[in-house]
Amino acid sequence: MTTGVRRRMGVEERRQQLIGVALELFSHRSPDDVSIDEIAAAAGISRPLVYHYFPGKLSLYEAALRRAADELAERFVEPHEGPLGARLLRVMGRYFAFVDEHGPGFSALLRGGPAAGSSRANAMIDEVRQAAYEQILLHIGVRQPPARLELVVRSWVSLAESTALLWLDGRRIPRAELELQLVHDFAALAAVSAAYDEEMAGILVDILAGEPADGPFGELVGRLAALVPGPREGGQDR
Amino acid sequence: MTTGVRRRMGVEERRQQLIGVALELFSHRSPDDVSIDEIAAAAGISRPLVYHYFPGKLSLYEAALRRAADELAERFVEPHEGPLGARLLRVMGRYFAFVDEHGPGFSALLRGGPAAGSSRANAMIDEVRQAAYEQILLHIGVRQPPARLELVVRSWVSLAESTALLWLDGRRIPRAELELQLVHDFAALAAVSAAYDEEMAGILVDILAGEPADGPFGELVGRLAALVPGPREGGQDR
Repeated sequence: MTTGVRRRMGVEERRQQLIGVALELFSHRSPDDVSIDEIAAAAGISRPLVYHYFPGKLSLYEAALRRAADELAERFVEPHEGPLGARLLRVMGRYFAFVDEHGPGFSALLRGGPAAGSSRANAMIDEVRQAAYEQILLHIGVRQPPARLELVVRSWVSLAESTALLWLDGRRIPRAELELQLVHDFAALAAVSAAYDEEMAGILVDILAGEPADGPFGELVGRLAALVPGPREGGQDR
Repeated sequence: MTTGVRRRMGVEERRQQLIGVALELFSHRSPDDVSIDEIAAAAGISRPLVYHYFPGKLSLYEAALRRAADELAERFVEPHEGPLGARLLRVMGRYFAFVDEHGPGFSALLRGGPAAGSSRANAMIDEVRQAAYEQILLHIGVRQPPARLELVVRSWVSLAESTALLWLDGRRIPRAELELQLVHDFAALAAVSAAYDEEMAGILVDILAGEPADGPFGELVGRLAALVPGPREGGQDR
Protein backbone atom coordinates (compact mmCIF):
# COMPACT_ATOMS: atom_id res chain seq x y z
CA MET A 1 0.00 0.00 0.00
CA THR A 2 2.67 2.48 -0.96
CA THR A 3 1.68 4.25 -4.17
CA GLY A 4 -1.02 6.86 -4.46
CA VAL A 5 -3.28 4.63 -6.50
CA ARG A 6 -3.06 1.75 -4.08
CA ARG A 7 -3.59 3.92 -1.04
CA ARG A 8 -7.00 4.96 -2.37
CA MET A 9 -8.19 1.36 -2.69
CA GLY A 10 -10.15 0.06 0.31
CA VAL A 11 -10.04 -3.57 1.38
CA GLU A 12 -13.31 -4.50 -0.32
CA GLU A 13 -12.42 -2.56 -3.45
CA ARG A 14 -9.08 -4.36 -3.68
CA ARG A 15 -10.74 -7.72 -3.15
CA GLN A 16 -13.21 -6.98 -5.94
CA GLN A 17 -10.38 -5.87 -8.26
CA LEU A 18 -8.46 -9.09 -7.57
CA ILE A 19 -11.57 -11.19 -8.17
CA GLY A 20 -12.07 -9.43 -11.51
CA VAL A 21 -8.44 -9.90 -12.55
CA ALA A 22 -8.49 -13.55 -11.47
CA LEU A 23 -11.79 -14.25 -13.25
CA GLU A 24 -10.37 -12.76 -16.43
CA LEU A 25 -7.29 -15.01 -16.21
CA PHE A 26 -9.26 -18.11 -15.17
CA SER A 27 -11.63 -17.52 -18.09
CA HIS A 28 -8.97 -17.53 -20.77
CA ARG A 29 -6.68 -20.31 -19.60
CA SER A 30 -7.30 -23.39 -17.54
CA PRO A 31 -7.29 -22.20 -13.90
CA ASP A 32 -4.74 -24.92 -13.10
CA ASP A 33 -2.26 -23.06 -15.31
CA VAL A 34 -2.76 -19.63 -13.73
CA SER A 35 -0.37 -18.80 -10.88
CA ILE A 36 -0.78 -16.40 -8.00
CA ASP A 37 2.28 -14.57 -9.40
CA GLU A 38 0.42 -13.89 -12.64
CA ILE A 39 -2.65 -12.69 -10.80
CA ALA A 40 -0.47 -10.37 -8.70
CA ALA A 41 1.28 -9.04 -11.81
CA ALA A 42 -2.01 -8.49 -13.65
CA ALA A 43 -3.40 -6.63 -10.64
CA GLY A 44 -0.19 -4.60 -10.29
CA ILE A 45 0.46 -5.69 -6.72
CA SER A 46 2.91 -8.00 -4.97
CA ARG A 47 2.36 -11.69 -4.40
CA PRO A 48 2.30 -11.33 -0.59
CA LEU A 49 -0.36 -8.66 -0.93
CA VAL A 50 -2.59 -11.10 -2.86
CA TYR A 51 -2.27 -13.47 0.11
CA HIS A 52 -3.25 -10.61 2.39
CA TYR A 53 -6.67 -10.58 0.71
CA PHE A 54 -7.06 -14.27 -0.12
CA PRO A 55 -5.47 -17.08 1.92
CA GLY A 56 -4.69 -19.08 -1.23
CA LYS A 57 -5.48 -19.73 -4.84
CA LEU A 58 -8.50 -21.90 -4.03
CA SER A 59 -10.22 -19.13 -2.08
CA LEU A 60 -9.56 -16.64 -4.91
CA TYR A 61 -10.81 -19.22 -7.42
CA GLU A 62 -13.96 -19.74 -5.39
CA ALA A 63 -14.53 -15.98 -5.18
CA ALA A 64 -14.12 -15.69 -8.97
CA LEU A 65 -16.51 -18.61 -9.39
CA ARG A 66 -19.00 -16.86 -7.11
CA ARG A 67 -18.93 -13.78 -9.33
CA ALA A 68 -19.23 -15.84 -12.52
CA ALA A 69 -22.11 -17.88 -11.07
CA ASP A 70 -24.00 -14.71 -10.13
CA GLU A 71 -23.40 -13.25 -13.57
CA LEU A 72 -24.60 -16.41 -15.30
CA ALA A 73 -27.71 -16.67 -13.11
CA GLU A 74 -28.57 -13.07 -14.03
CA ARG A 75 -28.48 -14.01 -17.71
CA PHE A 76 -31.26 -16.56 -17.15
CA VAL A 77 -33.66 -13.78 -16.16
CA GLU A 78 -35.94 -12.99 -19.07
CA PRO A 79 -39.15 -10.90 -19.21
CA HIS A 80 -42.34 -13.00 -19.15
CA GLU A 81 -43.55 -11.67 -22.47
CA GLY A 82 -44.15 -13.29 -25.84
CA PRO A 83 -43.88 -16.95 -26.84
CA LEU A 84 -41.73 -19.32 -24.75
CA GLY A 85 -39.59 -20.41 -27.71
CA ALA A 86 -38.42 -16.85 -28.39
CA ARG A 87 -37.69 -16.30 -24.69
CA LEU A 88 -35.61 -19.48 -24.47
CA LEU A 89 -33.74 -18.48 -27.62
CA ARG A 90 -32.77 -15.12 -26.11
CA VAL A 91 -31.59 -16.84 -22.92
CA MET A 92 -29.57 -19.34 -24.97
CA GLY A 93 -27.92 -16.40 -26.79
CA ARG A 94 -26.82 -14.89 -23.48
CA TYR A 95 -25.78 -18.31 -22.13
CA PHE A 96 -23.53 -19.06 -25.10
CA ALA A 97 -22.09 -15.54 -24.93
CA PHE A 98 -21.12 -16.33 -21.33
CA VAL A 99 -19.63 -19.69 -22.32
CA ASP A 100 -17.75 -17.94 -25.12
CA GLU A 101 -16.31 -15.32 -22.76
CA HIS A 102 -15.26 -17.83 -20.10
CA GLY A 103 -14.45 -20.84 -22.31
CA PRO A 104 -11.36 -22.47 -20.79
CA GLY A 105 -12.51 -21.70 -17.24
CA PHE A 106 -16.00 -23.06 -17.95
CA SER A 107 -14.56 -26.30 -19.36
CA ALA A 108 -12.04 -26.75 -16.57
CA LEU A 109 -14.69 -26.15 -13.90
CA LEU A 110 -17.12 -28.73 -15.27
CA ARG A 111 -14.44 -31.26 -16.17
CA GLY A 112 -12.76 -31.00 -12.77
CA GLY A 113 -10.40 -28.07 -12.35
CA PRO A 114 -8.43 -26.87 -9.32
CA ALA A 115 -11.62 -26.75 -7.29
CA ALA A 116 -12.52 -30.38 -8.05
CA GLY A 117 -13.50 -31.83 -4.74
CA SER A 118 -14.18 -28.37 -3.38
CA SER A 119 -17.66 -28.69 -1.92
CA ARG A 120 -18.09 -24.90 -2.26
CA ALA A 121 -17.44 -25.06 -6.02
CA ASN A 122 -19.79 -28.03 -6.45
CA ALA A 123 -22.45 -26.20 -4.45
CA MET A 124 -22.12 -23.16 -6.74
CA ILE A 125 -22.46 -25.32 -9.85
CA ASP A 126 -25.60 -26.92 -8.42
CA GLU A 127 -26.93 -23.50 -7.48
CA VAL A 128 -26.61 -22.24 -11.08
CA ARG A 129 -28.34 -25.38 -12.37
CA GLN A 130 -31.09 -24.88 -9.83
CA ALA A 131 -31.49 -21.21 -10.83
CA ALA A 132 -31.84 -22.25 -14.50
CA TYR A 133 -34.39 -24.92 -13.54
CA GLU A 134 -36.46 -22.48 -11.47
CA GLN A 135 -36.42 -19.78 -14.15
CA ILE A 136 -37.74 -22.21 -16.74
CA LEU A 137 -40.53 -23.41 -14.44
CA LEU A 138 -41.52 -19.78 -13.88
CA HIS A 139 -41.75 -19.26 -17.64
CA ILE A 140 -43.78 -22.43 -18.14
CA GLY A 141 -45.98 -21.22 -15.29
CA VAL A 142 -46.06 -24.48 -13.35
CA ARG A 143 -45.63 -24.12 -9.61
CA GLN A 144 -45.73 -27.75 -8.54
CA PRO A 145 -43.99 -29.59 -11.36
CA PRO A 146 -44.87 -33.27 -11.83
CA ALA A 147 -41.86 -35.61 -11.74
CA ARG A 148 -41.82 -35.90 -15.55
CA LEU A 149 -41.69 -32.14 -16.06
CA GLU A 150 -38.92 -31.82 -13.49
CA LEU A 151 -37.00 -34.51 -15.37
CA VAL A 152 -37.49 -32.79 -18.74
CA VAL A 153 -36.37 -29.39 -17.46
CA ARG A 154 -33.42 -30.62 -15.40
CA SER A 155 -32.19 -32.94 -18.12
CA TRP A 156 -32.48 -30.12 -20.64
CA VAL A 157 -30.37 -27.88 -18.38
CA SER A 158 -27.78 -30.64 -18.33
CA LEU A 159 -28.05 -30.98 -22.12
CA ALA A 160 -27.38 -27.25 -22.52
CA GLU A 161 -24.27 -27.71 -20.37
CA SER A 162 -22.93 -30.68 -22.32
CA THR A 163 -23.73 -29.04 -25.65
CA ALA A 164 -21.79 -25.93 -24.60
CA LEU A 165 -18.82 -28.07 -23.47
CA LEU A 166 -18.79 -29.99 -26.74
CA TRP A 167 -19.04 -26.72 -28.68
CA LEU A 168 -16.02 -25.31 -26.83
CA ASP A 169 -14.02 -28.34 -27.96
CA GLY A 170 -13.19 -27.05 -31.43
CA ARG A 171 -16.19 -24.77 -32.09
CA ARG A 172 -16.97 -26.75 -35.24
CA ILE A 173 -20.65 -25.79 -35.33
CA PRO A 174 -21.78 -22.13 -35.42
CA ARG A 175 -22.90 -20.92 -32.01
CA ALA A 176 -26.20 -19.52 -33.28
CA GLU A 177 -27.15 -22.91 -34.70
CA LEU A 178 -26.63 -24.57 -31.32
CA GLU A 179 -28.63 -21.87 -29.52
CA LEU A 180 -31.61 -22.57 -31.80
CA GLN A 181 -31.02 -26.32 -31.62
CA LEU A 182 -31.20 -26.29 -27.83
CA VAL A 183 -34.54 -24.47 -27.96
CA HIS A 184 -35.75 -27.23 -30.29
CA ASP A 185 -34.22 -29.88 -28.06
CA PHE A 186 -36.33 -28.53 -25.20
CA ALA A 187 -39.50 -28.93 -27.26
CA ALA A 188 -38.34 -32.36 -28.44
CA LEU A 189 -37.64 -33.68 -24.93
CA ALA A 190 -40.98 -32.31 -23.72
CA ALA A 191 -42.74 -33.89 -26.71
CA VAL A 192 -41.14 -37.29 -26.06
CA SER A 193 -42.31 -37.12 -22.46
CA ALA A 194 -45.77 -35.92 -23.58
CA ALA A 195 -46.15 -38.75 -26.08
CA TYR A 196 -46.70 -41.20 -23.24
CA ASP A 197 -48.04 -39.03 -20.41
CA GLU A 198 -51.29 -37.08 -20.38
CA GLU A 199 -50.23 -34.49 -17.83
CA MET A 200 -47.11 -33.66 -19.87
CA ALA A 201 -49.22 -33.59 -23.03
CA GLY A 202 -51.43 -30.95 -21.42
CA ILE A 203 -48.41 -28.83 -20.45
CA LEU A 204 -46.93 -29.13 -23.96
CA VAL A 205 -50.22 -28.22 -25.61
CA ASP A 206 -50.38 -25.10 -23.42
CA ILE A 207 -46.83 -24.13 -24.41
CA LEU A 208 -47.41 -24.72 -28.11
CA ALA A 209 -50.70 -22.80 -28.04
CA GLY A 210 -48.67 -19.63 -27.41
CA GLU A 211 -46.21 -20.28 -30.23
CA PRO A 212 -46.49 -18.56 -33.60
CA ALA A 213 -46.31 -20.77 -36.70
CA ASP A 214 -43.08 -18.99 -37.70
CA GLY A 215 -41.49 -19.13 -34.21
CA PRO A 216 -38.72 -21.63 -33.41
CA PHE A 217 -41.15 -24.35 -32.25
CA GLY A 218 -43.56 -23.90 -35.14
CA GLU A 219 -40.77 -23.97 -37.68
CA LEU A 220 -39.33 -27.15 -36.19
CA VAL A 221 -42.65 -29.01 -36.33
CA GLY A 222 -43.02 -28.07 -39.99
CA ARG A 223 -39.51 -29.22 -40.84
CA LEU A 224 -39.86 -32.49 -38.93
CA ALA A 225 -43.18 -33.23 -40.59
CA ALA A 226 -41.50 -32.80 -43.97
CA LEU A 227 -38.54 -34.97 -42.92
CA VAL A 228 -40.24 -37.88 -41.19
CA PRO A 229 -43.51 -38.84 -42.85
CA GLY A 230 -43.66 -41.72 -40.40
CA PRO A 231 -45.56 -44.97 -40.52
CA ARG A 232 -49.06 -43.51 -40.14
CA GLU A 233 -51.51 -43.68 -42.98
CA GLY A 234 -52.92 -40.50 -44.56
CA GLY A 235 -51.33 -37.10 -44.14
CA GLN A 236 -49.19 -37.69 -47.21
CA ASP A 237 -50.82 -34.99 -49.27
CA ARG A 238 -48.10 -32.37 -49.05
CA MET B 1 -2.80 -65.28 6.67
CA THR B 2 -3.50 -67.63 9.53
CA THR B 3 -6.61 -69.64 8.71
CA GLY B 4 -6.85 -72.44 6.21
CA VAL B 5 -9.13 -70.53 3.85
CA ARG B 6 -6.90 -67.47 3.75
CA ARG B 7 -3.77 -69.46 3.17
CA ARG B 8 -5.18 -70.76 -0.07
CA MET B 9 -5.79 -67.25 -1.49
CA GLY B 10 -3.04 -65.93 -3.73
CA VAL B 11 -2.15 -62.25 -3.93
CA GLU B 12 -4.13 -61.59 -7.10
CA GLU B 13 -7.08 -63.64 -5.88
CA ARG B 14 -7.13 -61.69 -2.61
CA ARG B 15 -6.92 -58.38 -4.48
CA GLN B 16 -9.87 -59.41 -6.66
CA GLN B 17 -11.86 -60.47 -3.61
CA LEU B 18 -11.20 -57.11 -1.93
CA ILE B 19 -12.19 -55.23 -5.08
CA GLY B 20 -15.45 -57.19 -5.23
CA VAL B 21 -16.22 -56.56 -1.55
CA ALA B 22 -15.36 -52.86 -1.89
CA LEU B 23 -17.43 -52.44 -5.07
CA GLU B 24 -20.41 -54.02 -3.31
CA LEU B 25 -20.07 -51.59 -0.38
CA PHE B 26 -19.34 -48.55 -2.58
CA SER B 27 -22.41 -49.44 -4.68
CA HIS B 28 -24.87 -49.41 -1.81
CA ARG B 29 -23.67 -46.46 0.26
CA SER B 30 -21.83 -43.32 -0.71
CA PRO B 31 -18.14 -44.31 -0.94
CA ASP B 32 -17.32 -41.41 1.39
CA ASP B 33 -19.20 -43.23 4.15
CA VAL B 34 -17.48 -46.59 3.68
CA SER B 35 -14.42 -47.13 5.88
CA ILE B 36 -11.44 -49.42 5.36
CA ASP B 37 -12.49 -51.12 8.62
CA GLU B 38 -15.81 -52.07 7.07
CA ILE B 39 -14.17 -53.36 3.93
CA ALA B 40 -11.77 -55.42 6.03
CA ALA B 41 -14.66 -56.80 8.11
CA ALA B 42 -16.72 -57.65 5.03
CA ALA B 43 -13.71 -59.42 3.50
CA GLY B 44 -13.00 -61.26 6.75
CA ILE B 45 -9.46 -59.92 7.06
CA SER B 46 -7.66 -57.41 9.23
CA ARG B 47 -7.36 -53.70 8.43
CA PRO B 48 -3.54 -53.87 8.10
CA LEU B 49 -3.93 -56.71 5.61
CA VAL B 50 -6.17 -54.52 3.42
CA TYR B 51 -3.32 -51.98 3.36
CA HIS B 52 -0.99 -54.76 2.36
CA TYR B 53 -2.92 -55.09 -0.94
CA PHE B 54 -3.97 -51.48 -1.45
CA PRO B 55 -1.98 -48.49 -0.17
CA GLY B 56 -5.17 -46.60 0.74
CA LYS B 57 -8.88 -46.19 0.23
CA LEU B 58 -8.41 -44.17 -2.97
CA SER B 59 -6.47 -46.93 -4.70
CA LEU B 60 -9.08 -49.51 -3.67
CA TYR B 61 -11.81 -47.16 -4.84
CA GLU B 62 -10.07 -46.70 -8.18
CA ALA B 63 -9.71 -50.47 -8.58
CA ALA B 64 -13.43 -50.93 -7.83
CA LEU B 65 -14.22 -48.17 -10.32
CA ARG B 66 -12.06 -49.95 -12.91
CA ARG B 67 -14.08 -53.13 -12.49
CA ALA B 68 -17.39 -51.24 -12.61
CA ALA B 69 -16.30 -49.30 -15.72
CA ASP B 70 -15.34 -52.52 -17.53
CA GLU B 71 -18.62 -54.11 -16.56
CA LEU B 72 -20.61 -51.10 -17.78
CA ALA B 73 -18.71 -50.89 -21.07
CA GLU B 74 -19.49 -54.60 -21.67
CA ARG B 75 -23.19 -53.85 -21.33
CA PHE B 76 -23.00 -51.42 -24.26
CA VAL B 77 -22.06 -54.26 -26.59
CA GLU B 78 -25.11 -55.33 -28.57
CA PRO B 79 -25.40 -57.57 -31.67
CA HIS B 80 -25.71 -55.65 -34.94
CA GLU B 81 -29.04 -57.21 -35.82
CA GLY B 82 -32.50 -55.79 -36.22
CA PRO B 83 -33.68 -52.18 -36.04
CA LEU B 84 -31.57 -49.59 -34.18
CA GLY B 85 -34.41 -48.54 -31.87
CA ALA B 86 -34.80 -52.05 -30.49
CA ARG B 87 -31.01 -52.38 -30.04
CA LEU B 88 -30.80 -49.10 -28.13
CA LEU B 89 -33.73 -50.15 -25.96
CA ARG B 90 -31.97 -53.37 -24.96
CA VAL B 91 -28.80 -51.43 -24.13
CA MET B 92 -30.81 -48.95 -22.06
CA GLY B 93 -32.31 -51.87 -20.14
CA ARG B 94 -28.85 -53.15 -19.24
CA TYR B 95 -27.61 -49.62 -18.48
CA PHE B 96 -30.44 -48.91 -16.03
CA ALA B 97 -29.96 -52.33 -14.45
CA PHE B 98 -26.33 -51.32 -13.81
CA VAL B 99 -27.38 -47.93 -12.41
CA ASP B 100 -29.93 -49.70 -10.22
CA GLU B 101 -27.32 -52.13 -8.85
CA HIS B 102 -24.73 -49.43 -8.15
CA GLY B 103 -27.03 -46.49 -7.32
CA PRO B 104 -25.34 -44.62 -4.46
CA GLY B 105 -21.86 -45.25 -5.85
CA PHE B 106 -22.93 -44.13 -9.33
CA SER B 107 -24.38 -40.89 -7.95
CA ALA B 108 -21.43 -40.18 -5.70
CA LEU B 109 -18.97 -40.77 -8.52
CA LEU B 110 -20.66 -38.40 -10.95
CA ARG B 111 -21.48 -35.80 -8.32
CA GLY B 112 -17.95 -35.76 -6.92
CA GLY B 113 -17.17 -38.53 -4.46
CA PRO B 114 -13.91 -39.47 -2.71
CA ALA B 115 -12.17 -39.67 -6.07
CA ALA B 116 -13.19 -36.14 -7.07
CA GLY B 117 -10.04 -34.58 -8.38
CA SER B 118 -8.56 -38.03 -9.02
CA SER B 119 -7.42 -37.83 -12.60
CA ARG B 120 -7.58 -41.63 -12.81
CA ALA B 121 -11.26 -41.64 -11.85
CA ASN B 122 -12.03 -38.82 -14.30
CA ALA B 123 -10.17 -40.70 -17.04
CA MET B 124 -12.24 -43.82 -16.37
CA ILE B 125 -15.49 -41.84 -16.54
CA ASP B 126 -14.41 -40.35 -19.87
CA GLU B 127 -13.40 -43.80 -21.11
CA VAL B 128 -16.88 -45.19 -20.41
CA ARG B 129 -18.49 -42.22 -22.19
CA GLN B 130 -16.16 -42.75 -25.12
CA ALA B 131 -16.99 -46.48 -25.25
CA ALA B 132 -20.71 -45.63 -25.35
CA TYR B 133 -20.11 -43.07 -28.10
CA GLU B 134 -18.09 -45.51 -30.22
CA GLN B 135 -20.62 -48.32 -29.81
CA ILE B 136 -23.43 -46.11 -31.03
CA LEU B 137 -21.44 -44.94 -34.05
CA LEU B 138 -20.76 -48.60 -34.92
CA HIS B 139 -24.48 -49.31 -34.80
CA ILE B 140 -25.31 -46.28 -36.93
CA GLY B 141 -22.59 -47.47 -39.31
CA VAL B 142 -20.83 -44.12 -39.72
CA ARG B 143 -17.04 -44.28 -39.59
CA GLN B 144 -16.18 -40.59 -39.96
CA PRO B 145 -18.94 -38.82 -38.06
CA PRO B 146 -19.67 -35.23 -39.08
CA ALA B 147 -19.48 -32.72 -36.19
CA ARG B 148 -23.28 -32.62 -35.87
CA LEU B 149 -23.59 -36.39 -35.49
CA GLU B 150 -20.80 -36.43 -32.94
CA LEU B 151 -22.66 -33.73 -31.00
CA VAL B 152 -25.96 -35.64 -31.12
CA VAL B 153 -24.41 -38.91 -29.96
CA ARG B 154 -22.18 -37.43 -27.26
CA SER B 155 -24.91 -35.18 -25.91
CA TRP B 156 -27.30 -38.13 -25.85
CA VAL B 157 -24.76 -40.14 -23.83
CA SER B 158 -24.65 -37.24 -21.40
CA LEU B 159 -28.45 -37.12 -21.35
CA ALA B 160 -28.60 -40.83 -20.48
CA GLU B 161 -26.24 -40.09 -17.59
CA SER B 162 -28.22 -37.14 -16.24
CA THR B 163 -31.53 -38.98 -16.67
CA ALA B 164 -30.16 -41.92 -14.68
CA LEU B 165 -28.89 -39.59 -11.94
CA LEU B 166 -32.27 -37.82 -11.72
CA TRP B 167 -34.03 -41.19 -11.64
CA LEU B 168 -31.88 -42.34 -8.72
CA ASP B 169 -33.01 -39.27 -6.79
CA GLY B 170 -36.33 -40.67 -5.59
CA ARG B 171 -37.10 -43.14 -8.42
CA ARG B 172 -40.40 -41.38 -9.04
CA ILE B 173 -40.75 -42.55 -12.64
CA PRO B 174 -40.73 -46.26 -13.58
CA ARG B 175 -37.36 -47.34 -14.94
CA ALA B 176 -38.82 -48.99 -18.04
CA GLU B 177 -40.48 -45.72 -19.02
CA LEU B 178 -37.17 -43.88 -18.88
CA GLU B 179 -35.40 -46.57 -20.88
CA LEU B 180 -37.94 -46.16 -23.68
CA GLN B 181 -37.91 -42.37 -23.29
CA LEU B 182 -34.14 -42.24 -23.80
CA VAL B 183 -34.44 -44.23 -27.03
CA HIS B 184 -37.00 -41.67 -28.16
CA ASP B 185 -34.80 -38.83 -26.97
CA PHE B 186 -32.07 -40.14 -29.23
CA ALA B 187 -34.39 -40.00 -32.23
CA ALA B 188 -35.65 -36.59 -31.15
CA LEU B 189 -32.16 -35.07 -30.81
CA ALA B 190 -31.16 -36.55 -34.18
CA ALA B 191 -34.35 -35.22 -35.75
CA VAL B 192 -33.76 -31.71 -34.38
CA SER B 193 -30.27 -31.76 -35.84
CA ALA B 194 -31.59 -33.20 -39.12
CA ALA B 195 -34.26 -30.52 -39.43
CA TYR B 196 -31.60 -27.96 -40.34
CA ASP B 197 -28.78 -30.06 -41.80
CA GLU B 198 -28.93 -32.19 -44.94
CA GLU B 199 -26.16 -34.59 -43.96
CA MET B 200 -27.89 -35.34 -40.65
CA ALA B 201 -31.19 -35.68 -42.48
CA GLY B 202 -29.62 -38.35 -44.69
CA ILE B 203 -28.31 -40.26 -41.66
CA LEU B 204 -31.69 -40.05 -39.91
CA VAL B 205 -33.57 -41.23 -42.99
CA ASP B 206 -31.23 -44.25 -43.18
CA ILE B 207 -31.88 -45.06 -39.51
CA LEU B 208 -35.64 -44.70 -39.83
CA ALA B 209 -35.73 -46.79 -42.99
CA GLY B 210 -34.77 -49.82 -40.88
CA GLU B 211 -37.43 -49.16 -38.25
CA PRO B 212 -40.70 -51.07 -38.15
CA ALA B 213 -43.90 -49.04 -37.82
CA ASP B 214 -44.55 -50.65 -34.43
CA GLY B 215 -40.97 -50.24 -33.12
CA PRO B 216 -40.08 -47.56 -30.57
CA PHE B 217 -39.26 -44.92 -33.23
CA GLY B 218 -42.31 -45.64 -35.38
CA GLU B 219 -44.62 -45.55 -32.40
CA LEU B 220 -43.19 -42.23 -31.24
CA VAL B 221 -43.69 -40.55 -34.62
CA GLY B 222 -47.31 -41.69 -34.64
CA ARG B 223 -47.94 -40.39 -31.12
CA LEU B 224 -46.24 -37.06 -31.80
CA ALA B 225 -48.17 -36.57 -35.02
CA ALA B 226 -51.38 -37.07 -33.04
CA LEU B 227 -50.22 -34.68 -30.31
CA VAL B 228 -48.79 -31.80 -32.30
CA PRO B 229 -50.69 -31.15 -35.51
CA GLY B 230 -48.38 -28.21 -36.15
CA PRO B 231 -48.79 -25.14 -38.29
CA ARG B 232 -48.46 -26.85 -41.68
CA GLU B 233 -51.39 -27.00 -44.06
CA GLY B 234 -52.79 -30.33 -45.24
CA GLY B 235 -52.05 -33.63 -43.54
CA GLN B 236 -55.03 -33.12 -41.25
CA ASP B 237 -57.02 -35.99 -42.66
CA ARG B 238 -56.47 -38.50 -39.88
